[in-house]
Formats: sequence, structure tokens, C-alpha cells
Amino acid sequence: MDATPLDTLIKQLSRLPGIGARSSRRMALHLLKHKQNLMLPLAESLRDVAMRVQACHECGNWDVTPVCHICTDAKRDKRVLCVVETVADLWALERSHAFRGVYHVLGGTLSALDGVTPEQLRLPQLVQRCQTLGVAEVILALNATVDGQTTAHYIAHDLSLHGLRVTRLAHGVPMGGELDYLDDGTLTTALQARLLA
Amino acid sequence: MDATPLDTLIKQLSRLPGIGARSSRRMALHLLKHKQNLMLPLAESLRDVAMRVQACHECGNWDVTPVCHICTDAKRDKRVLCVVETVADLWALERSHAFRGVYHVLGGTLSALDGVTPEQLRLPQLVQRCQTLGVAEVILALNATVDGQTTAHYIAHDLSLHGLRVTRLAHGVPMGGELDYLDDGTLTTALQARLLA
Repeated sequence: MDATPLDTLIKQLSRLPGIGARSSRRMALHLLKHKQNLMLPLAESLRDVAMRVQACHECGNWDVTPVCHICTDAKRDKRVLCVVETVADLWALERSHAFRGVYHVLGGTLSALDGVTPEQLRLPQLVQRCQTLGVAEVILALNATVDGQTTAHYIAHDLSLHGLRVTRLAHGVPMGGELDYLDDGTLTTALQARLLA
Repeated sequence: MDATPLDTLIKQLSRLPGIGARSSRRMALHLLKHKQNLMLPLAESLRDVAMRVQACHECGNWDVTPVCHICTDAKRDKRVLCVVETVADLWALERSHAFRGVYHVLGGTLSALDGVTPEQLRLPQLVQRCQTLGVAEVILALNATVDGQTTAHYIAHDLSLHGLRVTRLAHGVPMGGELDYLDDGTLTTALQARLLA
């Protein structure tokens, strides 16, 4: 088959995360079967989002306004700030409904290998924001990976120099988790951080 | 989160086959990070395909022309016609480069339960096409499922009434297949259809 519009579409779909050649062909055929109900509305949505959605100037979340709906929400506690790696992590915390403060999206983790510096992670802005907002507590909600924890240590040290109170998420047994299936590291951490029952 | 353009996009992406809530969020975030290189070109492609690609009047394949590039190809043997369930099956056969005839896409299988009749599968057109093209052999390349084989039997009977030679794909051990992992049905079929070595 030559490079028809359909081939172009399939190639573009295969560039989406988790989508291979077979899935992208399947998607293209599904879209063709639902031109009016899915294909054209999806094209419209993609254009709409690309044109209107931008990164929040304050926290880095995606929204249609220059400052996102969380940062502008008067009911959110601006004195508690949660640091996350990505917008996906921010969304995960929002779905839990357990956090009513504001966020700061780093956009990644520090990495000497990949040349990611504190400036690229908007760390200077983080310190400035903490001071502007009068933040009482910074919660580090970074991934429990080597990169995530290295970055968390760096930020904790940096913020404590500015006299800020820094906490991090608890490590331990996940809800519904069976001890037999847990890795040694998690078990050790959960044992060390044991609480009175 | 309220129904922002981003929420709409995520909901639409989750309607694609094999895509759940998590994958669609991941896709949306990936697309936002690559607005110029992926998101806008994808929107353009979707519109382009929706506007230009149509089902071939002859065989049912998708193409930018009313009659597809296979049906109009003078080098294809119009005297051998291969019946497939879906365009995905047609593409799979094309990738094998093993077939140089033309196709007929049914668009599904017969099903009394779902009310799928021979007319909906374009079976009257199939008989007519065979007569117009002067087809010497009809190859039934339907899936080896109950529905596929039932439909194949129906078509074989129907076409033989019109004096057409009807064949079907061989069943047997797939290339690279290990006998120990094969199901009983396939093994039985392969044994019954054994050939001189």
C-alpha cells in the first residue's frame, strides 16, 4: 500500500504511547466505521485542546485558563503545597479527593545523565511560590523510584534551607496488598515505619 | 474536574478499541506534550481520512477512490476472488503478498441472533460480481471461528448452486507452532488433512 491518507493516520496513531502497528490499524478501522460519531468529533477535540489548553503559569497543570482551576479555587488551602513529577500524578491525587491544597508540577526528575537541572524542573519557582503563598507545609509526592526519591531528597534539602516544613508520602503495604506478593524493599520500609495498632 | 475540552478528548480516546481510562489519559498527556508534531497533524489526518476515504463500491475495501486500488489494478487476477470478513483481514492477506487476485469484504458474519442476513453481508452482490468478472475460483478466507465457518458453509453452498468453484484456507499447525501448545481441534484437523512428506 502507498502512503494514502489512511496509511498516514495509522502511522500517526502508532506514535501514541502503548500503541503498536496492530492496535493503530484496529483503531483506524474502528474510526472509519464511526466517522460521524467518533472520528470527526475526535479531530475537532484534538484541534480544540491543542489550541486552548495550556500549562498553568503557577503550578504547571493543564487547563484552558493561564492559571488553572485548582490554583484559582478559593476553597483550596494555599498554605499546603504538593510537589508532583507529572500532571498524571496530579490527576491521580485529585481522583483520591484526599488533598485540598495546591500543586507544583516538576515535569520530570533530576537526572545528571539526561542533563536535567533544578532550573528545568522549575525548582527556583517552587521556592519563590512557597514564599509568595506563605506555604506552611510542602508535601513531596514523587514516585517511589530511584530518580523520584533522589529528586525528593534534593528538594527537601533545598526547601529546608529556606526554613520550610517538608513532608513526604508514607511508604508501606498498599491497600489490598498481600504480603506474600510484596517486594522486600516495601516490606522492610513498612516494618520500620510500623505504627501502634 | 468539570467537562473541559481535555475531559472531552479523554472520553473520546477511551472509546477507541482496547483503550481504557488510564490509557486515554496517558495519550492525552502525550498529545499535549507534542502539540505541533503529533496532536495537530493527527487532528488534520482524522479530518482528511473522514472526508476522503470511502468503501470501495466493488469489494468494500477502504480507499480514497470510489473503486479501490486493488480492484482497479490491471495486474491483479480478476478470475480469483477472495472472500474476507473485514478490511483488517484483507490487509493481513495483502501483507502476506501471497494473493494476487481481488477481494470481497463481507463486513461481518451471518448471525441469526444479531439479525445479520445474507443481504447485509453483500452476498447477492458477491454472486453478481462473480458472474460479471467471470470468476474461476472463490477462496473463502473467513476466520476459523464458529460464526466464520458457519458463514463459509452458507456461502460455499450458495455459490456452488451458481456453478462456481469454491475453496477455503487450509487449517493446520501454524508456522513456528509447537504441537504441545496447540488445541485439540487444530491437531485433529492437521492430522486428518495430512499430506505426503
